[in-house]
Amino acid sequence: MKINRELSRNAPIGVFDSGVGGLTVFREIMRQIPNEKIIYFGDTARVPYGSKSQETVTRYSEQIVRFLKTFQVKTIVVACNTASAYALDTLEKDSDVPMIGVVKPGAKSAVQVTGNGRIGVIATEATINSQIYTEYIKELNSDVTIYGKACPLFVPLVEEGLLKDPVTDEIARRYLAELIDIDIDTLILGCTHYPLIRSTLGRIMGERVTLVNPAYETALELKKMLESLDLLNDEPPGLGSGQYRFYVSDKAEKFVRFANSIIKYGILSAQAVNIEDY
Amino acid sequence: MKINRELSRNAPIGVFDSGVGGLTVFREIMRQIPNEKIIYFGDTARVPYGSKSQETVTRYSEQIVRFLKTFQVKTIVVACNTASAYALDTLEKDSDVPMIGVVKPGAKSAVQVTGNGRIGVIATEATINSQIYTEYIKELNSDVTIYGKACPLFVPLVEEGLLKDPVTDEIARRYLAELIDIDIDTLILGCTHYPLIRSTLGRIMGERVTLVNPAYETALELKKMLESLDLLNDEPPGLGSGQYRFYVSDKAEKFVRFANSIIKYGILSAQAVNIEDY
Repeated sequence: MKINRELSRNAPIGVFDSGVGGLTVFREIMRQIPNEKIIYFGDTARVPYGSKSQETVTRYSEQIVRFLKTFQVKTIVVACNTASAYALDTLEKDSDVPMIGVVKPGAKSAVQVTGNGRIGVIATEATINSQIYTEYIKELNSDVTIYGKACPLFVPLVEEGLLKDPVTDEIARRYLAELIDIDIDTLILGCTHYPLIRSTLGRIMGERVTLVNPAYETALELKKMLESLDLLNDEPPGLGSGQYRFYVSDKAEKFVRFANSIIKYGILSAQAVNIEDY
Repeated sequence: MKINRELSRNAPIGVFDSGVGGLTVFREIMRQIPNEKIIYFGDTARVPYGSKSQETVTRYSEQIVRFLKTFQVKTIVVACNTASAYALDTLEKDSDVPMIGVVKPGAKSAVQVTGNGRIGVIATEATINSQIYTEYIKELNSDVTIYGKACPLFVPLVEEGLLKDPVTDEIARRYLAELIDIDIDTLILGCTHYPLIRSTLGRIMGERVTLVNPAYETALELKKMLESLDLLNDEPPGLGSGQYRFYVSDKAEKFVRFANSIIKYGILSAQAVNIEDY
């Protein structure tokens, strides 16, 4: 990363995800640094990323970064675990703005939280296969043991709205059984959709297990990073300044409907862009 | 459709789908017209289509058709219900090769099969929203009543391999409950993944309901069309002629593994192409 151009405090933050899951990260940023402008991009035409290859996820992420840069963003948040796992290193190499992913903040928090040194990670197939949580956690503390488990049905179940449902319970019980047997005391929700079924996951894991939500940790980390670079926006954007803007690669209506059903912030509109042109 | 160029009997048939589901159509073609060469394309990078908009599905389908035409195919089979519903009309308009979708053959068969004139259609959200089955069936027989039901979780359940599983049973029972109440006697499996959970669907619907598999009907229709155009390949392709070739937009390995787990034909390899370049 070589940041050699002047970044403006007043510029927006770019946030992207494969679809709507990244809105859980958007929500945390909105809460923790309410003066910031945010440009959110959801790749709803090509969602999901979690079952795709590194090459494909990287190519898609590069297009999105080029799109976000047209807004002169002062930083980019990769609000998708799969893209953070597969593409962040490549994206950072050529970037002239600072970038932050969701994996490192989640890993750091889990290492601080664990008492018995046994951490579980649930995520998409791609994130688990990348071994990225294991790598980051081992860098921080090589004595910790990490157990990864891919949970491919959680995203479709969340997108179908089965947030509290016996079927989601049953699938969660199957996915989590081995993590319970292994006696982990910390569980990283390694996909931005998963905080939406947090209560189900918490109930099944039991009280002794702490759930780590990387969305929350990422917003904290972002705030610290902007502070250290003297890039925090010190005054609230004026009314009608379009503080939050949403772009998607497929039709906007569906995104708006779903987004409003999961986050309690009134998203009035989103704009569709042809991301393959970037 | 304006077919003004010479098509060769010896040329391959192009078949495409959003991913692996179209292999159920490929399998039927292979069985019913074993002398034909087939080029199969699965858009595994951008799967699924069933939750996407008409504009996006049409743009993707056009790219794939351009790709298939580089093989001088003599016909193109749109082996995906969503693409047949959303894109076939547009694709046919500019096409210089005959095209066939999976919707019309399925609709035709259902009209022939029904006794009480009450037909159910299960499919993706996109196919149901398009109302295409209703339109085709009404054209054939306006006295028939059609009941459509979107079943968005079936594709992820199939892709997760839960073909015979209590969770798939429970989800199927929920989706199908209203179709049972309405007393349909014919059910169209309006998504190419669904024949893979045929036994579950049949058990829940009961013996009085006939399941229509458009994959089978499409292969029959294709055979008739090629016959009428005098385009059937009359001699088996020689050994080593690469009778069946598979292309995908994401990594090939995963496709090959999954494909071999669901169809009993040994797919040795597939080739990845960057479909956005077409």
